[in-house]
Amino acid sequence: MPPLNSHNSRQSEGTSSQQGPGVFSNLDATCFPAFDRGQVWLVGAGPGAPGLLTLLGYYALQKAEVVIHDALVNKEIISWANNRAEVIFAGKRGGKPSPRQEDISSRLIELAKQGLRVLRLKGGDPFVFGRGGEECQKLADAGIPFRIVPGISTGIGGLAYAGIPVTHREINHSVLFLTGHEADGRMPHSVDWRAVALASPVIVLYMALKNLPVIIDRLLAHGRNPNEKLVIISNATLQDQQVYEMTLETTPNVLEKLQIATPAIIVIGKVVGFRNSLDWYVNMMRENKIG
Amino acid sequence: MPPLNSHNSRQSEGTSSQQGPGVFSNLDATCFPAFDRGQVWLVGAGPGAPGLLTLLGYYALQKAEVVIHDALVNKEIISWANNRAEVIFAGKRGGKPSPRQEDISSRLIELAKQGLRVLRLKGGDPFVFGRGGEECQKLADAGIPFRIVPGISTGIGGLAYAGIPVTHREINHSVLFLTGHEADGRMPHSVDWRAVALASPVIVLYMALKNLPVIIDRLLAHGRNPNEKLVIISNATLQDQQVYEMTLETTPNVLEKLQIATPAIIVIGKVVGFRNSLDWYVNMMRENKIG
Repeated sequence: MPPLNSHNSRQSEGTSSQQGPGVFSNLDATCFPAFDRGQVWLVGAGPGAPGLLTLLGYYALQKAEVVIHDALVNKEIISWANNRAEVIFAGKRGGKPSPRQEDISSRLIELAKQGLRVLRLKGGDPFVFGRGGEECQKLADAGIPFRIVPGISTGIGGLAYAGIPVTHREINHSVLFLTGHEADGRMPHSVDWRAVALASPVIVLYMALKNLPVIIDRLLAHGRNPNEKLVIISNATLQDQQVYEMTLETTPNVLEKLQIATPAIIVIGKVVGFRNSLDWYVNMMRENKIG
Repeated sequence: MPPLNSHNSRQSEGTSSQQGPGVFSNLDATCFPAFDRGQVWLVGAGPGAPGLLTLLGYYALQKAEVVIHDALVNKEIISWANNRAEVIFAGKRGGKPSPRQEDISSRLIELAKQGLRVLRLKGGDPFVFGRGGEECQKLADAGIPFRIVPGISTGIGGLAYAGIPVTHREINHSVLFLTGHEADGRMPHSVDWRAVALASPVIVLYMALKNLPVIIDRLLAHGRNPNEKLVIISNATLQDQQVYEMTLETTPNVLEKLQIATPAIIVIGKVVGFRNSLDWYVNMMRENKIG
């Protein structure tokens, strides 16, 4: 059994965290990539908690001259934009439909062609059921240089804030991520539900609240256990995070009785059981402002 | 068609990004959760590029008095630790076996019981095939308070740096993540390979280089197309990132001829085709120090 190797020596204890200001200012000396004029950066904001934004995402918010964001991005993250930046909302509002994807892409291209530094800010990760690929294709077709800044996906990070490890060596060697609807809100087509039911002990469902009873029907029809646990996490990683635990069988009934707020991420499988011992966020951190 | 709403006005152009120092120092006024004595924070470092660390992860590095890290964590990220912190390496080195999981957990518990602020730093995300769940269980059993700080998983963010969106509306409503080996290096057991082959148009394989020919055999035996594209990304998001494109059929031959460096992430499916137009990292950013 090899020893754990120690490199630096601990010179003092307990003082390092007493420092208030200056924690982040050291980063200003670090060389980040140039955000050049006429570029579009597609940035994932993560599940919600501002502290889960990446360093590069924060840097981009300081450099961008225009920020176009979706409804799901936390207001505190948006407030971090450079105060000279134009901030454009491109999500649903007050029951009105969202701007069409083509209109957002056209706007990004137009702004980049004006020579501006354009930041497209999306919830979660831009490439996980986020239509980021389509936006990049449009940019590439128009000859606009772009960069992707990945974000923490809610199907991983949101689960962690509910005390649920998305994989655990004793339970699953695989995990399946599935989106709960098509662009038009209907059930996703061309899904082999038998294979989905059998491929992985753990299934994570994005944007699936509306179609959940139908999805569960399909999974039960192909052999998932009705007593298997299912957890719904709404507003994951935020102060108002709510975690609902049920079984596949009881879910339709629970959904009828409760008004569960969106956005919500759903996880099916035995990893849910670790919540009993690993629910650190509720136990420890509610009082803090940022997670 | 609703308009894109503009909130702030753009007062000036082109000056915001001229600022050198002070980009990150604004963050010092932000309220992050307290890193209390005797706590263990389990932090995901992301795929490699330092800019993909989260703000909360960076903050934890400034506050921690002990940092215990794996081999896969980028040296630049480790160098960001508070210079009074003790830095402990807990990975493989020079052919020696890694410290046993139990020894790492015992060390974390011991240091926390000394009243230290302990940071456990892991590559990628701690809960994606990273054994973070096991470490948390040990901490919970010992009554040590802990926090999870998720990281960008390489199966999402690493792919993005190769121009590959892990999902695309035209191609997949689901994605399957699979680890390529057990703790002992052998093929993962109790996997329904038929279901894995059919469940999703896109499969992402972690730590699967060694067992890849066997995995491909299983997928081909259950109906995947031998001409289907497969991409291997080694050192994803780093300066020395290498991307290898092949088909399921040609993979074993390619692996024999090439010495592909680990760590490597592997993706199978049509999303690979977007590389042709979306390969932004190679086209645009190689010259920059941090991604």
